[in-house]
Formats: sequence, C-alpha cells, structure tokens
Amino acid sequence: MSLKVAIGVDIGGTLTKVGIVDLEGNMYGHTEFPTQKGKDFKQFLDELVHTFNQLIEKSSADLEVVGMGVGAPNANYYRGTIEHPANLKWKGILRVTEELQKRFDKPVHITNDANAAAIGEMIYGEAKGMQDFIVITLGTGLGSGVVSNGKLIYGYDSQAAELGHIVIDYNGRWTGLDRRGGLEAYVSSTGLKRNVFFLLCDSLKDSVLRDYSFNDLHGEIITKAAEEGDPIAIEAYELTGKYLGQALANFTTFSHPEAFFLLGGLAKAGKWIFEPTKKYMDEYLLPFYKDKVKLLPSGMMDKNAAILGASALVWDHLKH
Amino acid sequence: MSLKVAIGVDIGGTLTKVGIVDLEGNMYGHTEFPTQKGKDFKQFLDELVHTFNQLIEKSSADLEVVGMGVGAPNANYYRGTIEHPANLKWKGILRVTEELQKRFDKPVHITNDANAAAIGEMIYGEAKGMQDFIVITLGTGLGSGVVSNGKLIYGYDSQAAELGHIVIDYNGRWTGLDRRGGLEAYVSSTGLKRNVFFLLCDSLKDSVLRDYSFNDLHGEIITKAAEEGDPIAIEAYELTGKYLGQALANFTTFSHPEAFFLLGGLAKAGKWIFEPTKKYMDEYLLPFYKDKVKLLPSGMMDKNAAILGASALVWDHLKH
Repeated sequence: MSLKVAIGVDIGGTLTKVGIVDLEGNMYGHTEFPTQKGKDFKQFLDELVHTFNQLIEKSSADLEVVGMGVGAPNANYYRGTIEHPANLKWKGILRVTEELQKRFDKPVHITNDANAAAIGEMIYGEAKGMQDFIVITLGTGLGSGVVSNGKLIYGYDSQAAELGHIVIDYNGRWTGLDRRGGLEAYVSSTGLKRNVFFLLCDSLKDSVLRDYSFNDLHGEIITKAAEEGDPIAIEAYELTGKYLGQALANFTTFSHPEAFFLLGGLAKAGKWIFEPTKKYMDEYLLPFYKDKVKLLPSGMMDKNAAILGASALVWDHLKH
Repeated sequence: MSLKVAIGVDIGGTLTKVGIVDLEGNMYGHTEFPTQKGKDFKQFLDELVHTFNQLIEKSSADLEVVGMGVGAPNANYYRGTIEHPANLKWKGILRVTEELQKRFDKPVHITNDANAAAIGEMIYGEAKGMQDFIVITLGTGLGSGVVSNGKLIYGYDSQAAELGHIVIDYNGRWTGLDRRGGLEAYVSSTGLKRNVFFLLCDSLKDSVLRDYSFNDLHGEIITKAAEEGDPIAIEAYELTGKYLGQALANFTTFSHPEAFFLLGGLAKAGKWIFEPTKKYMDEYLLPFYKDKVKLLPSGMMDKNAAILGASALVWDHLKH
C-alpha cells in the first residue's frame, strides 16, 4: 500500500523550501531553490512543481500525494493568495492556489509562516490533542498563530494573530508601518538588539557589547556575552523576557491558551529567554490563571519547521 | 404543534431573572425574584425551577422546553459551576448544572454574562451569520465575549475573554485583584467616572461635574453635562473612547473580528462613546485592517439581554 504524504512549501524572499512529509512528520526528501532569481511568478510555480515531482520520483518509498500546503508572508488563507508581499519582487496579488491547481490536481492551501507553525505544532509537535494554544515565532519580527477550539483563528479577512503588532507602548519605539510601540520592537531578535542598545544608552555599565555596531550585533554574540556574565547582555535578556512575559499574561486574558510555544532564533537562546519570560508571565497572570498556562519550547525547534508547518495544513484540512 | 422554547436564567447578586424564549428571540413570559434572601443554594434552585414552571403553565402558547441556559458571574462553562463568586453569599464551588439536572430533565448550560451576551448576539442579534466578532459589555466593569470560527472562545479552563483585565498601563490605575492598569479602570461606567475625576484633577476648567462626589456621579449626569457643552464631560467621553478605540485596534491584531458590538450602560450614551471610539479605533488600526472592522451597537441593547443571552446557549448547543 502506498504511503500518504503531503507537500510542504515555504516561500521566502530568497529561498523556497520544499519537502515531502507524512502524517507523522517524517520527511521523504526535501530541497530548496532560489525564489525570484531571473523568473516571473509563473516560471517560479513551474519550477516549484518540477522540484517536488523530482523529489517524489527520487524517493524509494511508494508515495501517494494527498495535497499541498504553502507557507508564505502576506498569505491570505481564504483567497489562496499572497497579497502585496514586501519581500518579493512580484507585486500586487499573486493567485497562488489558483495557479498551482492548474499544475497539480490535489487540494492546495496557503497561510502565513507563523500560522503554519501553529498547525505544525498541532499536527506533529507538542500541541497534539490541545484545543487552545498559541505559537510565538521569534525571528527578525514576532509572528504568531492562535488555535482556539482546536482550530486556527484566521478572523474575518485572514489577518488574525498579528501579535507582533500589538501596541505595548503608544509612546514607544518605532515599529514600521509608521507606528510606535509594537511588541516586536521589544521582543524578537531585533527587539533583543534594541534592548541592548537601550541599556547601552541608559546605563554606564561596562560591557563587551559596547564594541559592536548595531549591524554587527546578533543574538549569538549577546548569548555568549550573557554566558560570560556580561551585565548588559544579561539585563537585555531579562528585559526582553519581561516584555514577553507581560504580553503573554495579557494574551491569556484573550483566549486562555493551555500553553504558549516559543519558536525561532531567539527561542534557541534557551534559559536566557525562557526563564525571565516565565517569571514575568507568572507574576502578571491574574490569580485565576495561575498554574493553568504553560510556557514551552516548540516541538519543531530543531526541525525543518517551515516545511513541516506548511505540510501540516494538508492534514489539518483532512481532519476537519 | 408545540413551539420549541429555551429557558434563560440570569443569576445576579440581588435578582435572578428568568424568561422563556423561542429561537427568534420572542419572549413567552419573564419574571425575577431575589437571589439570596434567606435561602441556601438548593432552596434557590428549587425556587428557580418553581418559577419557570409557573411561567410555562401561565403561557397560553403550547410550549415545548428544549433546554436551559444560565448566565452568571464566575461561571465555568466546562464544569457547569459557579466558582468562588464575589457577589454571592454562597461560597466555594456551586454545582449549578449538576443540581439543576436533578430537577429538570433537559440539557442545562452555564456561562458568564458577557459570553452569554455574545451568543445572544449571534443567535438573536446583529451577529447572525458572522463567524468572527467580539461583544464588549460596558457596565460597572468591562466584560467580553469572543467568537472565532463561529464558536465562542472559552479557552483551556473557561476563563478566556476577560478583556476588562487586559493591562493597558503597568503604572496605571488600580484595578482590583491588586493589579494596575486593567482596561476596565479606563473603559466602563466606573472608568468614565474615573476619567472625569482625572480631568477634574488635571485641569482648571470649570465644570458642573465639580459639584458631584464620586459616589453621587453617574453616567446620565455626565451625558447630560456633555450635551450641555460641559468641557470636562465632553473630554471624559473623548478620553474613554480613545482608550477603548486603541484597545479595539489592539484586539483586532488578535482575532480580526468582522465587528465589535458594544452593549451595556455606557454603550447607551450613543454618539458620545461611539464617535470617539470609532475615530481612535480607525486611527490605530493597522493599514491592512482598514475598513475591515465594524463598530456597532449591540442588537440586544434595549432588550432583556441577560435573559436572551442565557437562553441563546441552548440554541447554540443544538446548532453544533
């Protein structure tokens, strides 16, 4: 009997990743290719189809493809589109599922990367069996996927769970989109750097981080400095965890998740980010939530989360 | 043929309201009785059952009762309980549905008042057919009910949608529960009063409101003053609408509702609260939400929202 598999596709500004995944999250080949280099959108889709067909042909297993899931920034789940992507040269509205269906005869679904991560957590990761949870992806920005009643929340026009844009301080840091105080200016890889630079400005403390330019500084340097006892690095993580912990306590009043899962570059800093986040989340949680909200590392942390998350869309659809 | 009806019960600290309601929201008799006066919890339940049986007997229509919905503060939907209610003399955990099922052989469901209001809006009100919306009840405090994917969000332990407790300023006003900065300290009937007192403290402007004690001041006085051009009253509404509009813009990044519905005493102030709230909500909404979120008065505004909302639980259960 053939093995049912889903195709997972992650469209990034530079690279597109493709993989073949079964219901258990096992990967039957994966690869990547440049997204935009010298091709228009339809040529890109042709290459995408060619790429996963090759993966399937190369596999020694007897695979039956049941569908395709695509993760991409600015994706609209309802319309199957990527709309006005900031990180792609193709402008306007890209009809991804419609165009793919011309080239592929199984169902195709698309959502943004953070939503895909949440569905991945539910299908393959640590949220199996959970009805209510939130995944927070901590990369350059802060992305999120919210699951309630066992279903991802897309909202009225597929723009729910943009928690990186929740305003935590109306007089705070510039956040892009001509706004101030969005959470991701405080909590993300970039947010951590901005916290370092705030502390370098605010305090007189000596720190190895005083030798780095903003552009040269990155998370691993800050973690290494923290491990060596650098006071600014340690305080920057404490501050980042405080902002995140307070935010998670606030989010709890909205959907009361059983757990928050952290994923992405900043989450890999381990105790440096988890410990202060947990401390402040617990401090700010209202009494009736105490011990009823977990903070956990994503089960997708060291896996190919982007491909897995996208492929999970297929299994989630078959479930409902 | 007999007409299917649901019993709606709203348990308040002083009065318990009971009504018989059909799927269209038509009421076939309603009444109220003192909740706690001289009775223990089981005597209260006996009286409740006696009361709705009398209502049914008195009705000239041929009614078939299909279930009962109960709205109450501190209700736990999953366990069918009222837990540690602050406004009732009966302490601990009250097993409402279990005890009612001993006295009544149709399904009984319980939820808190604001959640009941949201389900009422969906079944009888202006949210019919909407999959994603939020009801905000503006009374002494701020209550809320969040519907996503066509279902109310209860969360992991039935404590979702406590948006009155979302912190908007960690150094802000005391909010109860030994916390600072909860939204309801700024947006509610009490919040409006607190905004008046902030402005009376902050400014030198003359105002008729300088003649009222905090305890004597209430919403109608403030509205009347605003209508007569009182600068403090007008500014207090503006400020209240600013806090609410900013909060609604923030909530949109969470679940992207199609509409927010306002209900309760403060919502009855009409343009005084709706206009500034809409202005600031639109100002703070991110560009991709523009014109995709409505601010509307609840369709239950001048009806017996508490009874209707509770009865709607029954129809909502039959739907799923």
